[in-house]
Amino acid sequence: MKPVEECIIGIVGLGLMGGAVALALRKCGAAGKGKLLACDTDSSALNAALAGGVIDEGFVSPEALLERADLVYLCLNPSTLLSFMKARMGSFKNGALITDIAGVKGAICAAMEETLREDLDFIPGHPMAGSEKGGYACSMYCDFRGKNYILTPLKRNKGEHIDYIKKLIRRMGFGKVTETSAAEHDRKIAFTSQLCHVIAAALIDCEADTNITSFGGGSFEDLTRIAMLNAPMWTELFIENSSALLSRIGQFEKSLGEIKALVESGQARVLEERLAAVRERRLLMNA
Amino acid sequence: MKPVEECIIGIVGLGLMGGAVALALRKCGAAGKGKLLACDTDSSALNAALAGGVIDEGFVSPEALLERADLVYLCLNPSTLLSFMKARMGSFKNGALITDIAGVKGAICAAMEETLREDLDFIPGHPMAGSEKGGYACSMYCDFRGKNYILTPLKRNKGEHIDYIKKLIRRMGFGKVTETSAAEHDRKIAFTSQLCHVIAAALIDCEADTNITSFGGGSFEDLTRIAMLNAPMWTELFIENSSALLSRIGQFEKSLGEIKALVESGQARVLEERLAAVRERRLLMNA
Repeated sequence: MKPVEECIIGIVGLGLMGGAVALALRKCGAAGKGKLLACDTDSSALNAALAGGVIDEGFVSPEALLERADLVYLCLNPSTLLSFMKARMGSFKNGALITDIAGVKGAICAAMEETLREDLDFIPGHPMAGSEKGGYACSMYCDFRGKNYILTPLKRNKGEHIDYIKKLIRRMGFGKVTETSAAEHDRKIAFTSQLCHVIAAALIDCEADTNITSFGGGSFEDLTRIAMLNAPMWTELFIENSSALLSRIGQFEKSLGEIKALVESGQARVLEERLAAVRERRLLMNA
Repeated sequence: MKPVEECIIGIVGLGLMGGAVALALRKCGAAGKGKLLACDTDSSALNAALAGGVIDEGFVSPEALLERADLVYLCLNPSTLLSFMKARMGSFKNGALITDIAGVKGAICAAMEETLREDLDFIPGHPMAGSEKGGYACSMYCDFRGKNYILTPLKRNKGEHIDYIKKLIRRMGFGKVTETSAAEHDRKIAFTSQLCHVIAAALIDCEADTNITSFGGGSFEDLTRIAMLNAPMWTELFIENSSALLSRIGQFEKSLGEIKALVESGQARVLEERLAAVRERRLLMNA
Protein backbone atom coordinates (compact mmCIF):
# COMPACT_ATOMS: atom_id res chain seq x y z
CA MET A 1 0.00 0.00 0.00
CA LYS A 2 1.16 3.51 -0.74
CA PRO A 3 1.43 6.01 2.15
CA VAL A 4 -2.04 6.95 3.38
CA GLU A 5 -1.45 10.65 2.54
CA GLU A 6 -1.14 9.70 -1.13
CA CYS A 7 -4.15 7.39 -1.24
CA ILE A 8 -7.45 7.94 -2.89
CA ILE A 9 -9.80 7.02 -0.06
CA GLY A 10 -13.42 6.22 -0.82
CA ILE A 11 -16.12 6.35 1.86
CA VAL A 12 -19.24 4.38 1.02
CA GLY A 13 -22.22 5.68 2.98
CA LEU A 14 -22.15 9.22 4.32
CA GLY A 15 -24.42 8.93 7.34
CA LEU A 16 -23.46 9.62 10.95
CA MET A 17 -20.48 7.25 10.98
CA GLY A 18 -19.41 7.79 7.36
CA GLY A 19 -19.43 11.51 7.98
CA ALA A 20 -17.47 11.15 11.21
CA VAL A 21 -14.91 8.93 9.45
CA ALA A 22 -14.59 11.47 6.62
CA LEU A 23 -14.08 14.28 9.12
CA ALA A 24 -11.47 12.33 11.10
CA LEU A 25 -9.60 11.33 7.92
CA ARG A 26 -9.62 14.93 6.73
CA LYS A 27 -8.39 16.25 10.06
CA CYS A 28 -5.55 13.74 10.36
CA GLY A 29 -4.26 14.49 6.88
CA ALA A 30 -5.04 11.10 5.30
CA ALA A 31 -5.45 11.41 1.51
CA GLY A 32 -3.96 14.89 1.87
CA LYS A 33 -1.96 14.48 -1.31
CA GLY A 34 -4.59 12.12 -2.75
CA LYS A 35 -8.37 12.50 -2.71
CA LEU A 36 -11.16 11.89 -0.26
CA LEU A 37 -14.21 10.60 -2.14
CA ALA A 38 -17.62 9.65 -0.83
CA CYS A 39 -20.74 8.07 -2.25
CA ASP A 40 -24.23 8.06 -0.86
CA THR A 41 -27.70 7.79 -2.36
CA ASP A 42 -28.54 11.00 -0.44
CA SER A 43 -27.06 13.86 -2.45
CA SER A 44 -27.78 16.40 0.31
CA ALA A 45 -25.23 14.69 2.58
CA LEU A 46 -22.69 14.76 -0.27
CA ASN A 47 -23.38 18.44 -0.93
CA ALA A 48 -22.98 19.33 2.74
CA ALA A 49 -19.66 17.44 2.91
CA LEU A 50 -18.44 19.11 -0.29
CA ALA A 51 -19.50 22.55 0.92
CA GLY A 52 -17.72 21.96 4.23
CA GLY A 53 -14.53 20.88 2.50
CA VAL A 54 -14.76 17.47 4.21
CA ILE A 55 -14.62 15.49 0.95
CA ASP A 56 -13.11 16.31 -2.46
CA GLU A 57 -15.70 14.59 -4.64
CA GLY A 58 -19.12 13.05 -4.08
CA PHE A 59 -21.03 10.41 -6.03
CA VAL A 60 -24.59 9.16 -5.83
CA SER A 61 -23.56 5.90 -7.44
CA PRO A 62 -20.47 3.99 -6.21
CA GLU A 63 -18.90 2.85 -9.52
CA ALA A 64 -16.72 5.92 -10.18
CA LEU A 65 -15.53 5.87 -6.56
CA LEU A 66 -14.71 2.18 -6.42
CA GLU A 67 -12.69 2.15 -9.61
CA ARG A 68 -10.37 4.86 -8.24
CA ALA A 69 -10.13 4.18 -4.47
CA ASP A 70 -6.99 2.56 -3.05
CA LEU A 71 -8.64 2.34 0.34
CA VAL A 72 -12.40 1.90 0.81
CA TYR A 73 -14.20 2.62 4.11
CA LEU A 74 -17.59 0.91 4.01
CA CYS A 75 -19.87 2.81 6.39
CA LEU A 76 -23.02 0.75 5.92
CA ASN A 77 -25.42 -1.30 8.02
CA PRO A 78 -24.51 -5.03 8.00
CA SER A 79 -27.20 -6.17 5.56
CA THR A 80 -26.55 -3.27 3.16
CA LEU A 81 -22.85 -4.03 3.33
CA LEU A 82 -23.38 -7.67 2.40
CA SER A 83 -25.58 -6.88 -0.56
CA PHE A 84 -23.23 -4.07 -1.62
CA MET A 85 -20.21 -6.40 -1.65
CA LYS A 86 -22.14 -9.01 -3.61
CA ALA A 87 -23.29 -6.53 -6.23
CA ARG A 88 -20.07 -4.47 -6.51
CA MET A 89 -17.30 -7.01 -6.06
CA GLY A 90 -16.23 -6.53 -9.68
CA SER A 91 -15.98 -2.75 -9.39
CA PHE A 92 -13.18 -2.41 -6.81
CA LYS A 93 -9.80 -1.18 -8.03
CA ASN A 94 -7.22 -3.92 -8.37
CA GLY A 95 -5.43 -4.48 -5.02
CA ALA A 96 -7.73 -2.20 -3.01
CA LEU A 97 -7.75 -2.38 0.77
CA ILE A 98 -11.22 -2.36 2.31
CA THR A 99 -12.46 -1.90 5.86
CA ASP A 100 -15.87 -1.42 7.44
CA ILE A 101 -17.59 -0.23 10.59
CA ALA A 102 -20.50 -2.67 11.01
CA GLY A 103 -21.57 -3.47 14.57
CA VAL A 104 -22.02 -7.24 14.02
CA LYS A 105 -19.16 -9.14 12.42
CA GLY A 106 -20.04 -12.86 12.16
CA ALA A 107 -21.91 -12.92 8.86
CA ILE A 108 -19.69 -10.30 7.21
CA CYS A 109 -16.47 -12.09 8.12
CA ALA A 110 -17.82 -15.44 6.96
CA ALA A 111 -18.96 -13.96 3.63
CA MET A 112 -15.68 -12.11 3.03
CA GLU A 113 -13.58 -15.14 3.99
CA GLU A 114 -15.37 -17.06 1.22
CA THR A 115 -16.24 -14.62 -1.52
CA LEU A 116 -13.71 -11.75 -1.49
CA ARG A 117 -11.91 -11.23 -4.78
CA GLU A 118 -8.39 -12.65 -4.69
CA ASP A 119 -6.55 -9.34 -5.21
CA LEU A 120 -8.52 -7.39 -2.58
CA ASP A 121 -8.03 -7.35 1.19
CA PHE A 122 -10.84 -6.64 3.66
CA ILE A 123 -10.05 -5.88 7.33
CA PRO A 124 -13.32 -6.01 9.29
CA GLY A 125 -13.53 -3.34 11.98
CA HIS A 126 -15.87 -1.77 14.51
CA PRO A 127 -15.21 1.73 15.84
CA MET A 128 -16.85 1.85 19.30
CA ALA A 129 -18.10 5.38 18.88
CA GLY A 130 -21.50 6.60 17.93
CA SER A 131 -24.21 8.96 18.95
CA GLU A 132 -27.92 8.78 19.58
CA LYS A 133 -28.15 11.47 16.93
CA GLY A 134 -28.18 10.24 13.34
CA GLY A 135 -27.29 11.33 9.83
CA TYR A 136 -24.40 13.21 8.23
CA ALA A 137 -25.48 16.53 9.79
CA CYS A 138 -24.74 15.08 13.26
CA SER A 139 -21.42 13.49 12.43
CA MET A 140 -19.47 16.25 14.15
CA TYR A 141 -20.99 15.10 17.47
CA CYS A 142 -19.37 11.71 17.01
CA ASP A 143 -16.10 12.06 18.88
CA PHE A 144 -13.47 9.39 18.18
CA ARG A 145 -10.83 10.61 20.64
CA GLY A 146 -9.71 7.86 22.99
CA LYS A 147 -12.52 5.51 21.95
CA ASN A 148 -12.11 1.76 21.53
CA TYR A 149 -11.81 0.15 18.09
CA ILE A 150 -12.19 -3.57 17.46
CA LEU A 151 -10.69 -5.41 14.49
CA THR A 152 -11.76 -8.94 13.61
CA PRO A 153 -9.16 -9.92 11.00
CA LEU A 154 -9.83 -12.62 8.43
CA LYS A 155 -7.44 -15.56 8.08
CA ARG A 156 -6.52 -14.23 4.65
CA ASN A 157 -5.64 -10.67 5.81
CA LYS A 158 -2.04 -9.62 5.21
CA GLY A 159 -0.22 -8.59 8.41
CA GLU A 160 1.04 -5.41 6.76
CA HIS A 161 -2.53 -4.42 5.89
CA ILE A 162 -3.70 -4.95 9.47
CA ASP A 163 -0.81 -2.76 10.68
CA TYR A 164 -1.65 -0.15 8.06
CA ILE A 165 -5.27 0.08 9.20
CA LYS A 166 -4.27 0.11 12.87
CA LYS A 167 -1.92 3.02 12.27
CA LEU A 168 -4.69 4.90 10.46
CA ILE A 169 -7.15 4.19 13.29
CA ARG A 170 -4.75 5.66 15.88
CA ARG A 171 -4.15 8.63 13.62
CA MET A 172 -7.92 9.24 13.54
CA GLY A 173 -7.79 9.68 17.31
CA PHE A 174 -9.01 6.31 18.60
CA GLY A 175 -7.51 4.89 21.81
CA LYS A 176 -7.29 1.16 22.37
CA VAL A 177 -7.36 -1.10 19.29
CA THR A 178 -8.27 -4.71 20.07
CA GLU A 179 -7.94 -7.66 17.68
CA THR A 180 -10.29 -10.55 18.23
CA SER A 181 -12.37 -13.13 16.37
CA ALA A 182 -15.73 -12.23 14.86
CA ALA A 183 -17.47 -14.66 17.25
CA GLU A 184 -15.78 -13.15 20.32
CA HIS A 185 -16.62 -9.65 19.07
CA ASP A 186 -20.26 -10.54 18.62
CA ARG A 187 -20.50 -12.14 22.07
CA LYS A 188 -18.89 -9.16 23.83
CA ILE A 189 -20.67 -6.48 21.84
CA ALA A 190 -23.95 -8.22 22.63
CA PHE A 191 -23.18 -7.29 26.24
CA THR A 192 -21.51 -3.86 26.14
CA SER A 193 -23.62 -2.42 23.38
CA GLN A 194 -26.73 -4.36 22.34
CA LEU A 195 -27.89 -5.44 25.80
CA CYS A 196 -27.46 -1.83 26.98
CA HIS A 197 -29.64 -0.59 24.12
CA VAL A 198 -32.29 -3.22 24.88
CA ILE A 199 -32.29 -2.20 28.56
CA ALA A 200 -32.55 1.50 27.74
CA ALA A 201 -35.40 0.76 25.34
CA ALA A 202 -37.23 -1.38 27.91
CA LEU A 203 -36.88 1.36 30.55
CA ILE A 204 -38.61 3.84 28.27
CA ASP A 205 -41.05 1.25 26.94
CA CYS A 206 -42.37 0.47 30.44
CA GLU A 207 -43.33 4.02 31.49
CA ALA A 208 -45.69 6.18 29.48
CA ASP A 209 -45.45 9.31 31.67
CA THR A 210 -43.05 11.63 29.85
CA ASN A 211 -43.19 14.07 32.77
CA ILE A 212 -41.44 11.51 34.96
CA THR A 213 -38.20 13.36 34.18
CA SER A 214 -39.23 16.02 36.74
CA PHE A 215 -38.20 13.29 39.17
CA GLY A 216 -34.94 12.54 37.39
CA GLY A 217 -31.59 13.09 39.03
CA GLY A 218 -29.26 12.05 36.22
CA SER A 219 -29.36 8.26 36.52
CA PHE A 220 -32.50 7.83 34.46
CA GLU A 221 -31.25 10.31 31.87
CA ASP A 222 -27.88 8.54 31.60
CA LEU A 223 -29.46 5.09 31.35
CA THR A 224 -31.92 6.09 28.65
CA ARG A 225 -30.00 8.53 26.44
CA ILE A 226 -29.29 5.67 24.01
CA ALA A 227 -33.01 4.92 23.82
CA MET A 228 -33.05 7.72 21.21
CA LEU A 229 -31.76 5.05 18.87
CA ASN A 230 -31.85 4.57 15.13
CA ALA A 231 -34.67 2.01 15.11
CA PRO A 232 -33.99 0.35 11.72
CA MET A 233 -30.27 -0.08 12.40
CA TRP A 234 -30.67 -1.44 15.92
CA THR A 235 -33.44 -3.79 14.84
CA GLU A 236 -31.02 -5.19 12.28
CA LEU A 237 -28.15 -5.46 14.79
CA PHE A 238 -30.36 -7.15 17.42
CA ILE A 239 -31.77 -9.71 14.99
CA GLU A 240 -28.48 -10.32 13.19
CA ASN A 241 -26.78 -11.07 16.53
CA SER A 242 -29.84 -12.55 18.23
CA SER A 243 -28.27 -15.70 19.59
CA ALA A 244 -25.52 -13.83 21.52
CA LEU A 245 -27.94 -11.07 22.51
CA LEU A 246 -30.61 -13.45 23.83
CA SER A 247 -28.01 -15.21 25.93
CA ARG A 248 -26.88 -11.83 27.34
CA ILE A 249 -30.46 -10.78 28.11
CA GLY A 250 -30.91 -14.08 29.96
CA GLN A 251 -27.71 -13.51 31.94
CA PHE A 252 -28.89 -10.02 32.93
CA GLU A 253 -32.41 -11.22 33.80
CA LYS A 254 -30.89 -13.79 36.17
CA SER A 255 -28.90 -11.16 38.12
CA LEU A 256 -31.86 -8.78 38.11
CA GLY A 257 -34.12 -11.53 39.44
CA GLU A 258 -31.66 -12.39 42.21
CA ILE A 259 -31.33 -8.77 43.34
CA LYS A 260 -35.11 -8.44 43.19
CA ALA A 261 -35.46 -11.52 45.41
CA LEU A 262 -33.08 -10.02 47.98
CA VAL A 263 -35.11 -6.81 48.08
CA GLU A 264 -38.35 -8.80 48.30
CA SER A 265 -37.17 -10.93 51.19
CA GLY A 266 -35.59 -7.94 52.94
CA GLN A 267 -32.19 -9.63 53.22
CA ALA A 268 -30.35 -6.38 53.88
CA ARG A 269 -26.98 -7.85 54.76
CA VAL A 270 -26.77 -10.16 51.72
CA LEU A 271 -28.02 -7.38 49.44
CA GLU A 272 -25.47 -4.92 50.82
CA GLU A 273 -22.64 -7.44 50.30
CA ARG A 274 -23.77 -8.03 46.74
CA LEU A 275 -23.95 -4.29 45.99
CA ALA A 276 -20.54 -3.75 47.58
CA ALA A 277 -19.11 -6.48 45.30
CA VAL A 278 -20.76 -4.77 42.31
CA ARG A 279 -19.17 -1.49 43.31
CA GLU A 280 -15.72 -3.10 43.58
CA ARG A 281 -16.07 -4.81 40.19
CA ARG A 282 -17.19 -1.62 38.50
CA LEU A 283 -14.25 0.29 40.01
CA LEU A 284 -11.88 -2.34 38.60
CA MET A 285 -13.39 -1.72 35.16
CA ASN A 286 -12.21 1.89 35.37
CA ALA A 287 -8.65 0.83 36.11
CA MET B 1 -38.44 33.25 59.78
CA LYS B 2 -35.69 35.85 59.63
CA PRO B 3 -33.96 36.49 56.27
CA VAL B 4 -31.80 33.52 55.35
CA GLU B 5 -28.63 35.68 55.33
CA GLU B 6 -29.12 36.32 59.03
CA CYS B 7 -29.90 32.73 60.00
CA ILE B 8 -27.78 30.33 61.91
CA ILE B 9 -27.99 27.28 59.65
CA GLY B 10 -27.03 23.87 61.01
CA ILE B 11 -26.13 20.97 58.75
CA VAL B 12 -26.47 17.57 60.37
CA GLY B 13 -24.28 14.99 58.59
CA LEU B 14 -21.33 16.22 56.55
CA GLY B 15 -21.02 13.43 53.97
CA LEU B 16 -21.30 13.83 50.21
CA MET B 17 -24.68 15.58 50.29
CA GLY B 18 -24.17 17.47 53.54
CA GLY B 19 -20.91 18.79 52.18
CA ALA B 20 -22.50 19.75 48.87
CA VAL B 21 -25.35 21.53 50.70
CA ALA B 22 -22.84 23.40 52.88
CA LEU B 23 -20.87 24.45 49.81
CA ALA B 24 -23.99 25.62 47.97
CA LEU B 25 -25.26 27.55 51.02
CA ARG B 26 -21.87 29.20 51.43
CA LYS B 27 -21.66 30.14 47.76
CA CYS B 28 -25.16 31.63 47.63
CA GLY B 29 -24.57 33.80 50.69
CA ALA B 30 -27.07 32.08 53.02
CA ALA B 31 -26.11 32.61 56.67
CA GLY B 32 -23.67 35.24 55.42
CA LYS B 33 -24.48 37.52 58.33
CA GLY B 34 -25.28 34.51 60.54
CA LYS B 35 -23.33 31.28 60.92
CA LEU B 36 -23.03 28.02 59.02
CA LEU B 37 -22.61 25.17 61.51
CA ALA B 38 -22.20 21.47 60.87
CA CYS B 39 -22.09 18.34 62.96
CA ASP B 40 -20.79 14.91 62.07
CA THR B 41 -19.35 12.00 64.02
CA ASP B 42 -16.38 12.14 61.63
CA SER B 43 -14.18 15.00 62.78
CA SER B 44 -11.97 14.81 59.67
CA ALA B 45 -14.90 15.96 57.51
CA LEU B 46 -15.52 18.84 59.93
CA ASN B 47 -11.85 19.81 59.90
CA ALA B 48 -11.72 19.77 56.10
CA ALA B 49 -14.84 21.96 55.91
CA LEU B 50 -13.45 24.37 58.50
CA ALA B 51 -10.06 24.54 56.75
CA GLY B 52 -11.77 25.22 53.43
CA GLY B 53 -13.89 28.01 54.94
CA VAL B 54 -17.07 26.12 54.00
CA ILE B 55 -18.48 26.12 57.56
CA ASP B 56 -17.93 28.45 60.49
CA GLU B 57 -18.07 25.91 63.31
CA GLY B 58 -18.07 22.13 63.54
CA PHE B 59 -19.37 19.77 66.21
CA VAL B 60 -19.00 16.03 66.72
CA SER B 61 -22.16 16.00 68.81
CA PRO B 62 -25.33 17.75 67.62
CA GLU B 63 -26.57 19.39 70.86
CA ALA B 64 -24.67 22.68 70.59
CA LEU B 65 -25.71 23.00 66.93
CA LEU B 66 -29.38 22.22 67.44
CA GLU B 67 -29.84 24.70 70.31
CA ARG B 68 -28.58 27.57 68.10
CA ALA B 69 -29.79 26.76 64.58
CA ASP B 70 -32.76 28.65 63.12
CA LEU B 71 -32.70 26.37 60.07
CA VAL B 72 -31.56 22.74 60.20
CA TYR B 73 -30.59 20.75 57.09
CA LEU B 74 -30.67 17.06 57.96
CA CYS B 75 -28.31 15.27 55.54
CA LEU B 76 -28.76 11.74 56.85
CA ASN B 77 -29.86 8.34 55.53
CA PRO B 78 -33.57 7.69 56.20
CA SER B 79 -33.12 5.32 59.14
CA THR B 80 -30.49 7.53 60.80
CA LEU B 81 -32.78 10.53 60.31
CA LEU B 82 -35.69 8.79 62.02
CA SER B 83 -33.65 7.73 65.04
CA PHE B 84 -32.00 11.17 65.17
CA MET B 85 -35.36 12.95 65.27
CA LYS B 86 -36.63 10.58 67.95
CA ALA B 87 -33.55 11.08 70.16
CA ARG B 88 -33.04 14.83 69.60
CA MET B 89 -36.54 16.22 69.31
CA GLY B 90 -36.07 18.10 72.57
CA SER B 91 -32.85 19.76 71.48
CA PHE B 92 -34.08 21.89 68.57
CA LYS B 93 -34.26 25.65 69.08
CA ASN B 94 -37.76 26.95 69.62
CA GLY B 95 -39.47 27.64 66.26
CA ALA B 96 -36.71 26.08 64.17
CA LEU B 97 -37.38 25.22 60.52
CA ILE B 98 -36.08 21.81 59.46
CA THR B 99 -35.61 20.17 56.09
CA ASP B 100 -33.93 16.97 54.90
CA ILE B 101 -32.55 15.27 51.81
CA ALA B 102 -33.54 11.62 52.29
CA GLY B 103 -34.27 9.62 49.12
CA VAL B 104 -37.39 7.84 50.48
CA LYS B 105 -40.11 9.96 52.06
CA GLY B 106 -43.03 7.76 53.18
CA ALA B 107 -41.84 6.72 56.64
CA ILE B 108 -40.23 10.09 57.42
CA CYS B 109 -43.33 12.07 56.47
CA ALA B 110 -45.59 9.75 58.47
CA ALA B 111 -43.36 10.01 61.54
CA MET B 112 -43.02 13.80 61.33
CA GLU B 113 -46.73 14.28 60.72
CA GLU B 114 -47.33 12.49 64.04
CA THR B 115 -44.41 13.24 66.32
CA LEU B 116 -42.94 16.63 65.38
CA ARG B 117 -42.79 19.12 68.24
CA GLU B 118 -45.58 21.70 68.00
CA ASP B 119 -43.33 24.76 67.58
CA LEU B 120 -41.09 23.23 64.87
CA ASP B 121 -41.75 22.92 61.16
CA PHE B 122 -40.26 20.18 58.98
CA ILE B 123 -40.39 20.44 55.16
CA PRO B 124 -39.37 17.08 53.71
CA GLY B 125 -37.24 17.39 50.57
CA HIS B 126 -35.18 15.41 48.12
CA PRO B 127 -32.51 17.13 46.02
CA MET B 128 -32.16 15.01 42.86
CA ALA B 129 -28.42 15.37 42.69
CA GLY B 130 -25.74 13.01 43.81
CA SER B 131 -22.61 11.31 42.69
CA GLU B 132 -21.29 7.77 42.57
CA LYS B 133 -18.43 9.16 44.64
CA GLY B 134 -19.04 9.37 48.38
CA GLY B 135 -17.97 11.32 51.44
CA TYR B 136 -17.30 14.96 52.22
CA ALA B 137 -14.10 14.98 50.15
CA CYS B 138 -16.15 14.38 46.98
CA SER B 139 -18.88 16.91 47.71
CA MET B 140 -17.47 19.40 45.22
CA TYR B 141 -18.32 16.91 42.43
CA CYS B 142 -21.96 17.11 43.37
CA ASP B 143 -23.29 19.80 41.06
CA PHE B 144 -26.70 21.26 41.95
CA ARG B 145 -27.06 23.62 38.99
CA GLY B 146 -30.31 23.05 37.13
CA LYS B 147 -31.06 19.80 38.98
CA ASN B 148 -34.55 18.77 40.10
CA TYR B 149 -35.67 19.09 43.72
CA ILE B 150 -38.74 17.40 45.14
CA LEU B 151 -40.64 18.62 48.19
CA THR B 152 -43.23 16.43 49.90
CA PRO B 153 -44.88 18.90 52.31
CA LEU B 154 -46.68 17.75 55.45
CA LYS B 155 -50.28 18.80 56.09
CA ARG B 156 -49.03 20.84 59.02
CA ASN B 157 -46.37 22.81 57.04
CA LYS B 158 -46.87 26.56 56.94
CA GLY B 159 -47.14 27.96 53.40
CA GLU B 160 -44.63 30.69 54.20
CA HIS B 161 -42.10 28.06 55.30
CA ILE B 162 -42.54 26.08 52.08
CA ASP B 163 -41.99 29.28 50.10
CA TYR B 164 -38.94 30.10 52.22
CA ILE B 165 -37.34 26.71 51.54
CA LYS B 166 -38.23 26.88 47.83
CA LYS B 167 -36.53 30.27 47.53
CA LEU B 168 -33.45 28.89 49.25
CA ILE B 169 -33.39 25.84 46.95
CA ARG B 170 -33.46 28.04 43.85
CA ARG B 171 -30.74 30.22 45.34
CA MET B 172 -28.58 27.11 45.78
CA GLY B 173 -28.74 26.62 42.02
CA PHE B 174 -31.40 23.94 41.61
CA GLY B 175 -33.72 24.07 38.60
CA LYS B 176 -37.25 22.67 38.79
CA VAL B 177 -38.83 22.34 42.24
CA THR B 178 -41.78 19.93 42.33
CA GLU B 179 -44.24 19.55 45.21
CA THR B 180 -45.91 16.18 45.56
CA SER B 181 -47.08 13.67 48.14
CA ALA B 182 -44.65 11.32 49.87
CA ALA B 183 -46.39 8.32 48.27
CA GLU B 184 -46.15 9.81 44.76
CA HIS B 185 -42.50 10.71 45.37
CA ASP B 186 -41.69 7.18 46.45
CA ARG B 187 -43.47 5.63 43.46
CA LYS B 188 -41.72 7.90 40.95
CA ILE B 189 -38.29 7.79 42.55
CA ALA B 190 -38.56 4.00 42.56
CA PHE B 191 -38.53 4.33 38.78
CA THR B 192 -36.16 7.20 37.96
CA SER B 193 -33.60 6.43 40.63
CA GLN B 194 -33.88 3.10 42.42
CA LEU B 195 -34.80 0.93 39.42
CA CYS B 196 -31.90 2.52 37.50
CA HIS B 197 -29.50 1.64 40.30
CA VAL B 198 -30.82 -1.93 40.44
CA ILE B 199 -30.39 -2.27 36.66
CA ALA B 200 -26.84 -0.88 36.75
CA ALA B 201 -25.99 -3.23 39.59
CA ALA B 202 -27.46 -6.25 37.76
CA LEU B 203 -25.49 -5.36 34.61
CA ILE B 204 -22.23 -5.47 36.54
CA ASP B 205 -23.33 -8.42 38.66
CA CYS B 206 -23.93 -10.61 35.60
CA GLU B 207 -20.48 -10.27 33.99
CA ALA B 208 -17.25 -11.12 35.81
CA ASP B 209 -14.86 -10.08 33.02
CA THR B 210 -13.57 -6.64 34.03
CA ASN B 211 -11.70 -6.38 30.70
CA ILE B 212 -15.02 -6.27 28.87
CA THR B 213 -14.63 -2.47 28.85
CA SER B 214 -12.15 -2.86 25.94
CA PHE B 215 -15.34 -3.52 24.00
CA GLY B 216 -17.17 -0.54 25.47
CA GLY B 217 -18.31 2.35 23.34
CA GLY B 218 -19.88 4.57 25.97
CA SER B 219 -23.29 2.92 26.46
CA PHE B 220 -22.07 0.35 28.94
CA GLU B 221 -20.04 2.98 30.80
CA ASP B 222 -23.03 5.34 30.98
CA LEU B 223 -25.42 2.61 32.13
CA THR B 224 -23.13 1.33 34.87
CA ARG B 225 -21.49 4.47 36.29
CA ILE B 226 -24.04 4.46 39.11
CA ALA B 227 -23.08 0.85 39.92
CA MET B 228 -20.23 2.46 41.90
CA LEU B 229 -22.87 3.01 44.54
CA ASN B 230 -22.77 3.51 48.28
CA ALA B 231 -23.87 -0.04 49.18
CA PRO B 232 -25.21 0.58 52.72
CA MET B 233 -27.25 3.61 51.66
CA TRP B 234 -28.75 2.02 48.56
CA THR B 235 -29.55 -1.19 50.45
CA GLU B 236 -31.49 0.93 52.89
CA LEU B 237 -33.28 2.89 50.16
CA PHE B 238 -34.21 -0.29 48.23
CA ILE B 239 -35.59 -2.08 51.27
CA GLU B 240 -37.30 0.99 52.73
CA ASN B 241 -39.12 1.54 49.41
CA SER B 242 -39.34 -2.14 48.45
CA SER B 243 -43.01 -2.26 47.56
CA ALA B 244 -42.76 0.56 44.97
CA LEU B 245 -39.39 -0.69 43.75
CA LEU B 246 -40.55 -4.29 43.28
CA SER B 247 -43.49 -3.09 41.26
CA ARG B 248 -41.14 -1.00 39.07
CA ILE B 249 -38.77 -3.95 38.58
CA GLY B 250 -41.76 -6.04 37.49
CA GLN B 251 -42.89 -3.34 35.07
CA PHE B 252 -39.38 -3.20 33.56
CA GLU B 253 -39.07 -7.00 33.38
CA LYS B 254 -42.30 -7.15 31.40
CA SER B 255 -41.06 -4.71 28.74
CA LEU B 256 -37.66 -6.40 28.64
CA GLY B 257 -39.33 -9.79 28.19
CA GLU B 258 -41.50 -8.49 25.35
CA ILE B 259 -38.55 -6.97 23.50
CA LYS B 260 -36.63 -10.21 24.05
CA ALA B 261 -39.51 -12.20 22.56
CA LEU B 262 -39.52 -9.97 19.46
CA VAL B 263 -35.78 -10.54 18.98
CA GLU B 264 -36.21 -14.26 19.58
CA SER B 265 -39.00 -14.64 17.05
CA GLY B 266 -37.21 -12.38 14.56
CA GLN B 267 -40.23 -10.07 14.19
CA ALA B 268 -38.17 -7.27 12.65
CA ARG B 269 -41.05 -5.01 11.66
CA VAL B 270 -42.80 -5.13 15.05
CA LEU B 271 -39.49 -4.68 16.86
CA GLU B 272 -38.57 -1.71 14.70
CA GLU B 273 -41.94 -0.07 15.36
CA ARG B 274 -41.54 -0.60 19.09
CA LEU B 275 -38.02 0.87 19.07
CA ALA B 276 -39.20 3.83 16.99
CA ALA B 277 -41.95 4.48 19.56
CA VAL B 278 -39.35 4.28 22.35
CA ARG B 279 -37.22 6.82 20.51
CA GLU B 280 -40.17 9.20 20.13
CA ARG B 281 -41.12 8.89 23.80
CA ARG B 282 -37.55 9.50 24.96
CA LEU B 283 -37.31 12.57 22.71
CA LEU B 284 -40.51 13.93 24.32
CA MET B 285 -38.85 13.54 27.73
CA ASN B 286 -36.15 16.00 26.64
CA ALA B 287 -38.71 18.58 25.65
